[in-house]
Amino acid sequence: MWWTDEQWSELIDPARCGMCADAHLEENEHSILVGSTEATYFRLVRNQAHAGYSVVILREHVTDLDRLDALQLNAFWHDVQRAGKAVGAAFTPRKIDYLVMGHRAPHLHCHVFPQHRDDDPLRNVDIAEGPVYLSASELGGSVAALRETWRDFA
Amino acid sequence: MWWTDEQWSELIDPARCGMCADAHLEENEHSILVGSTEATYFRLVRNQAHAGYSVVILREHVTDLDRLDALQLNAFWHDVQRAGKAVGAAFTPRKIDYLVMGHRAPHLHCHVFPQHRDDDPLRNVDIAEGPVYLSASELGGSVAALRETWRDFA
Repeated sequence: MWWTDEQWSELIDPARCGMCADAHLEENEHSILVGSTEATYFRLVRNQAHAGYSVVILREHVTDLDRLDALQLNAFWHDVQRAGKAVGAAFTPRKIDYLVMGHRAPHLHCHVFPQHRDDDPLRNVDIAEGPVYLSASELGGSVAALRETWRDFA
Repeated sequence: MWWTDEQWSELIDPARCGMCADAHLEENEHSILVGSTEATYFRLVRNQAHAGYSVVILREHVTDLDRLDALQLNAFWHDVQRAGKAVGAAFTPRKIDYLVMGHRAPHLHCHVFPQHRDDDPLRNVDIAEGPVYLSASELGGSVAALRETWRDFA
């Protein structure tokens, strides 16, 4: 069963939204800030089972894609595409998936989810795969590499 | 393991691409045409395990989102958003997921994948769930309803 109306009201309440609270932080429980634009935050996810797995989070607390006006929609997907180009350049995956879900955190964000040589293309995509946590220096290296390619695609 | 280079070359070859061959058809093995724009085809998927499950397919044979120029990117997501609004109005889901994958068919398309009252928000999303095939008259009714709401959001 889906969330009850009461649970859903809590999840979409900006005052209680986890992403509103931590999407801008340099580091949070889930991810590290790579860069930001006027519209979005771009973060490398700590679980690097898929190297380069990142997320682009809209600054504004909007639950669904259909609520965006044309300018917001263009800005969001411009930033997601830029993130994908940066992930492609830094991590050379075979393919990148772009997933907008947000069942647990209904604050608009897109998972930039790379598929690499060792990944089975016929397996159902699962962002929770792993987890694989890098050492602090490895993670720092990945963030630095991604910051550089992200700037290249400005 | 991911596709070999040889397999991938075949999959991305427009001359052998299944979507290039059948995305414009009134009916194909996977889906029914709801409508089209200059940029995309909008189709209701035959597997209606998630009522309203649809797909928006770029007319042009482009493998990855990062290859689109700004105008194409805006047009594609405008059409996906319109599809989402139409699915929302016709099927009243609790949430809609937007999934760009294409491991088997690397011709850019976005799954518009509704979540309803009976769906578990914590279950990993799987577009292959079911399958649930409607009767011809039920399927026709769904297509007709979706055509109407899709026109409303033109």
